[in-house]
Amino acid sequence: MLRFECDYTEGCIPEILEAIARENHTQLQGYSEDTVTERARAKVKALCGRDDLAVHFLVGGTQANTTVIAAALRHHQGVIAAAQGHIACHETGAIEAAGHKVIALPSDTGRLTARQIDQVCAAHWFDPSFEHQTQPAMVYLSHPAENGTIYSLSELEEIRAVCDKWHLFLFLDGARLGYALASPRNDVSLQDLARLTDVFYIGGTKVGALFGEAVVISHPELARDFRYHIKQRGGMLAKGWLLGLQFDVLLENDRYMAISRKAVAQAMEIKKAFEEVGVSFWSDSYTNQLFPILPNEALKQFDENYVYNAGEKIDEGHTVARFCTSWATTDAQVQALIADIRRILG
Amino acid sequence: MLRFECDYTEGCIPEILEAIARENHTQLQGYSEDTVTERARAKVKALCGRDDLAVHFLVGGTQANTTVIAAALRHHQGVIAAAQGHIACHETGAIEAAGHKVIALPSDTGRLTARQIDQVCAAHWFDPSFEHQTQPAMVYLSHPAENGTIYSLSELEEIRAVCDKWHLFLFLDGARLGYALASPRNDVSLQDLARLTDVFYIGGTKVGALFGEAVVISHPELARDFRYHIKQRGGMLAKGWLLGLQFDVLLENDRYMAISRKAVAQAMEIKKAFEEVGVSFWSDSYTNQLFPILPNEALKQFDENYVYNAGEKIDEGHTVARFCTSWATTDAQVQALIADIRRILG
Amino acid sequence: MLRFECDYTEGCIPEILEAIARENHTQLQGYSEDTVTERARAKVKALCGRDDLAVHFLVGGTQANTTVIAAALRHHQGVIAAAQGHIACHETGAIEAAGHKVIALPSDTGRLTARQIDQVCAAHWFDPSFEHQTQPAMVYLSHPAENGTIYSLSELEEIRAVCDKWHLFLFLDGARLGYALASPRNDVSLQDLARLTDVFYIGGTKVGALFGEAVVISHPELARDFRYHIKQRGGMLAKGWLLGLQFDVLLENDRYMAISRKAVAQAMEIKKAFEEVGVSFWSDSYTNQLFPILPNEALKQFDENYVYNAGEKIDEGHTVARFCTSWATTDAQVQALIADIRRILG
Amino acid sequence: MLRFECDYTEGCIPEILEAIARENHTQLQGYSEDTVTERARAKVKALCGRDDLAVHFLVGGTQANTTVIAAALRHHQGVIAAAQGHIACHETGAIEAAGHKVIALPSDTGRLTARQIDQVCAAHWFDPSFEHQTQPAMVYLSHPAENGTIYSLSELEEIRAVCDKWHLFLFLDGARLGYALASPRNDVSLQDLARLTDVFYIGGTKVGALFGEAVVISHPELARDFRYHIKQRGGMLAKGWLLGLQFDVLLENDRYMAISRKAVAQAMEIKKAFEEVGVSFWSDSYTNQLFPILPNEALKQFDENYVYNAGEKIDEGHTVARFCTSWATTDAQVQALIADIRRILG
Repeated sequence: MLRFECDYTEGCIPEILEAIARENHTQLQGYSEDTVTERARAKVKALCGRDDLAVHFLVGGTQANTTVIAAALRHHQGVIAAAQGHIACHETGAIEAAGHKVIALPSDTGRLTARQIDQVCAAHWFDPSFEHQTQPAMVYLSHPAENGTIYSLSELEEIRAVCDKWHLFLFLDGARLGYALASPRNDVSLQDLARLTDVFYIGGTKVGALFGEAVVISHPELARDFRYHIKQRGGMLAKGWLLGLQFDVLLENDRYMAISRKAVAQAMEIKKAFEEVGVSFWSDSYTNQLFPILPNEALKQFDENYVYNAGEKIDEGHTVARFCTSWATTDAQVQALIADIRRILG
Repeated sequence: MLRFECDYTEGCIPEILEAIARENHTQLQGYSEDTVTERARAKVKALCGRDDLAVHFLVGGTQANTTVIAAALRHHQGVIAAAQGHIACHETGAIEAAGHKVIALPSDTGRLTARQIDQVCAAHWFDPSFEHQTQPAMVYLSHPAENGTIYSLSELEEIRAVCDKWHLFLFLDGARLGYALASPRNDVSLQDLARLTDVFYIGGTKVGALFGEAVVISHPELARDFRYHIKQRGGMLAKGWLLGLQFDVLLENDRYMAISRKAVAQAMEIKKAFEEVGVSFWSDSYTNQLFPILPNEALKQFDENYVYNAGEKIDEGHTVARFCTSWATTDAQVQALIADIRRILG
Repeated sequence: MLRFECDYTEGCIPEILEAIARENHTQLQGYSEDTVTERARAKVKALCGRDDLAVHFLVGGTQANTTVIAAALRHHQGVIAAAQGHIACHETGAIEAAGHKVIALPSDTGRLTARQIDQVCAAHWFDPSFEHQTQPAMVYLSHPAENGTIYSLSELEEIRAVCDKWHLFLFLDGARLGYALASPRNDVSLQDLARLTDVFYIGGTKVGALFGEAVVISHPELARDFRYHIKQRGGMLAKGWLLGLQFDVLLENDRYMAISRKAVAQAMEIKKAFEEVGVSFWSDSYTNQLFPILPNEALKQFDENYVYNAGEKIDEGHTVARFCTSWATTDAQVQALIADIRRILG
Repeated sequence: MLRFECDYTEGCIPEILEAIARENHTQLQGYSEDTVTERARAKVKALCGRDDLAVHFLVGGTQANTTVIAAALRHHQGVIAAAQGHIACHETGAIEAAGHKVIALPSDTGRLTARQIDQVCAAHWFDPSFEHQTQPAMVYLSHPAENGTIYSLSELEEIRAVCDKWHLFLFLDGARLGYALASPRNDVSLQDLARLTDVFYIGGTKVGALFGEAVVISHPELARDFRYHIKQRGGMLAKGWLLGLQFDVLLENDRYMAISRKAVAQAMEIKKAFEEVGVSFWSDSYTNQLFPILPNEALKQFDENYVYNAGEKIDEGHTVARFCTSWATTDAQVQALIADIRRILG
């Protein structure tokens, strides 16, 4: 079986394993206060073009989301997210378990717009009984969104302006950030993200690391005391250098972007194959996740050789599928899939 | 100014004040363990036709909702509610602050249906990654709903069946329960509620008391340790007899139903007046809350003499208004309003 | 039976009932935004000698404590309290349920000292792994303390200085504040409390009201958004004027202090009677609560005619009892008790 | 510098790195539902001699503690722990952030006794106002305790009996379990732990793994829905096989016990050296952590070549130090330390 169901079926790029083996017997200080992690922090700051950032490395996405949101919000505040956002529907109510409402907004595109954030805040503050409602205090974006689409620079700038208007933190979940930055449609840089958001993270788990997310904080109020929140939310790794080390390797020699570009290029090849046989898509993704709408009979045929996700049923005869590429996807796997696309759907 | 904006602008029925004055110098045990409260409990049980109920008196609706839901749910569980439900949008995220997601379902009618509860649960349990989502474990209904409409007996029976199917607690918020029971369209009795729900409450604050909600628990697992939750959520009144006493008075001599019937009858008179001048309604309410859709210019005229709520804008020229009656509404007030309806809108 | 077990066995001073009856049919705005409550707020500010205070009225002590502490703390912060403090042991973990650790310090006197607060904070901030511990961010004092003793002005000034040193909010629980202010040993005024604390409350439930605590906030950061927290914690009374009204009456014509002085004077008479028969005390209280250490056989005799609390067993033969006076205690009751003290213990 | 300050300064045993490298390109199912993890689960069950256990692998200790406790407790319940217990003082209030009070009991030995648990529960349930207190519902033990001492089988059996008496879950934190099992004073087996506790974990992070704790649940109520809690608390690793794999390697060929025995034997050699120069100990540890009480001047000399922890000051001239061994400690390091002990203190 060839697995295209997600971007985390394999381990990590070999250079990471080599580096771990190399450091394995070094005695390093615990809890991410070691020199290796410090080096990784410096690399993140350099790539973001700023020295005044706080950089922390966490194990996974739910942990990063919960820790950042809990660190940012007071008890009466909530976070605005798209209804499809990961924190709204795929984290077992972790944000609510930390005490905060996710203010979920419907979205046709899977992304939030500055306009709808503005409307929610206006509705809140102009309501005479606003104190009877959760106060919106943060905006959460996934970039790429759950459907593989990405925010443009101008969209992010408009959202930033609305956040400034209503005193909202802006938080960007970059669990798959590499694939956004590597998208042919992308016009957003890491420097832009450091400038436009208050906090974002550079995903490792889904982009070549064994695990790990690099949280980048530019807002000083959020940076203060952040390590308390890491510890409280169970994210303070005794051998924290394992996290720093992985980003030290990933961010060296353009590796992070190189593997992202490769995976996206493979996805674009597969996308073209689907398009050539007349398949349409649930979302117009130019990143490593594709959501073709497939006839149910075709699904059965793919099932024989492929693992992928089957999602929403579009109508009686069609279902949305998800195929992902990653750093580990080989060209042979891509060519096999393309051949089968042509064979089954052609 | 005449106030029709809610059903809690005045204090309480005079008999309650008399009773408080009568008991004021009696030395009574604290924390609702007194004889007066015991008498009120007995009355509730008698009206519900069952001895095996736990009855607790809490101060207000948000407190009752939070306490009941926190008592019922484990950390990974959430409560299903209509998107317009009070817990979903008018309690400042109290349920989330207690750690639980409100699974808000859209509803045209303001009420939940057995079918949509069934669909949500099926979607949860048939999803292979169900553990990545909040587990639905309780259904919250407001009766009357926020828009003044009520559940029929058959609707409640269907919802009960779905709750049994998916192992959900059924919780009915009866902050305005009297007005539902007194509705000309009602076919549900207190006995039905005790039989069909696991917990519900008989609202006092909005139905003639100074404050207070009588929580009636039939599910033994929920009844166990409930007083801990009352205390923890700040609802354990030192002079708890004040709560028991009010229900003792309200439930005596049919007072609770008598004042509810009076208020609903007044609302129906007002409704008829609106209908006669061709006004349509946002919801088809047969309880004490009316939601006429009024021309904006008419609103300006009403503003001169009336306090009421203006809600959703239906279109450029029309807005939903809310007019409420209560135990304290006088016939003179009703006639004044009717005269103005005819004058302004006729 | 004569009840001396607490200061909340009766209702309220008659003037409050009269005022409720007087306002019962007035149509007032809900949620404490009415004119009566505004008048009570003005009285509190005048008594504290400051215009820049936020004043909110809550139903009871646990609710007030939880709301204030949750409003003040971020998730990683905790509140320092004496191990005997109400929040540490008599509120069913309400503070923890709101997400915060109560950092409980042992105390022989039932009161905290500036020195021990200083030591805790120094221990926290000088520990290299401070982020692995709850950050102390608030100090909670009960005044009078649970054992009836009170803080002197100089003690409070020292504690304030330590709070400034370590950036701690200072919160004073005044559930029985009247009895502290009326103590023959007191040298602290309401103005002092407004100046030295960031937030405190003037207790009503135990000092002549049916229920209610007046929360007085001087720290602007704490005042901001406080009504959200009231609503979220279930303390936003629909008929909020009931709270304001009670304080409007209590704080008029020196009533609050008059009833407090009376109760303390009665307690001092009882104290003298115990002393004259050679009884010693668990704590040297000069407020309305007395904690005589009584022979177990005497307890049996008191049990025939009195309700009081029996607490800690001091040794095989002796137990700490608690006798309280209140606004409602009559001189006849006091004389009966004194006679029995002489009879049983003399 | 030689580091003896903790047992997690190095990475992992080489066999784990080899196994990761071997599996790195295998496509495995996510979220610990892979075949490697299944194999590790089987090994744990076999070692515990029971098939009916639920086994889950979590990243670290704080995460494991929070997840287990949150899964076990309802909102009004708390967990009993020694005041020195990790959850009581070194996890930034993680348990409180999950809503639960840690009922911390003083302990001279660092361990809880059946007797004191019994007393706390008796005090709770015999107090007439028990509902005003947190309900004890779980006992948390660290084994070894924070001071390196261990529970005997009879101590655990007595604690189990008390837990049965008061309906308490028994949870044993085995972050350093290997060193307890390998202690010359140990008489407790894994089978005993599976029989006597409701849940415990086999620590990996501090016993040869890169990270990871194997949570073993025998109580069915706790096992139900446990994966929801893992996800909600941020512990569901996308590449969960990394956790399973490490335990698969550790539990193979007696490796876990072999490295534990080696580390404890080294600690015993060091202990003997301290004893021979007349040093006494803060606790009588027979595991991998030693707590010698050292003259402050000696500490300065050790500081030149060693990293270790300096803790409590015993008196003006003496301080408690902590020296740890681990799987990675070499005999050369031990001999160097022993030589310096003799040189400095001899």
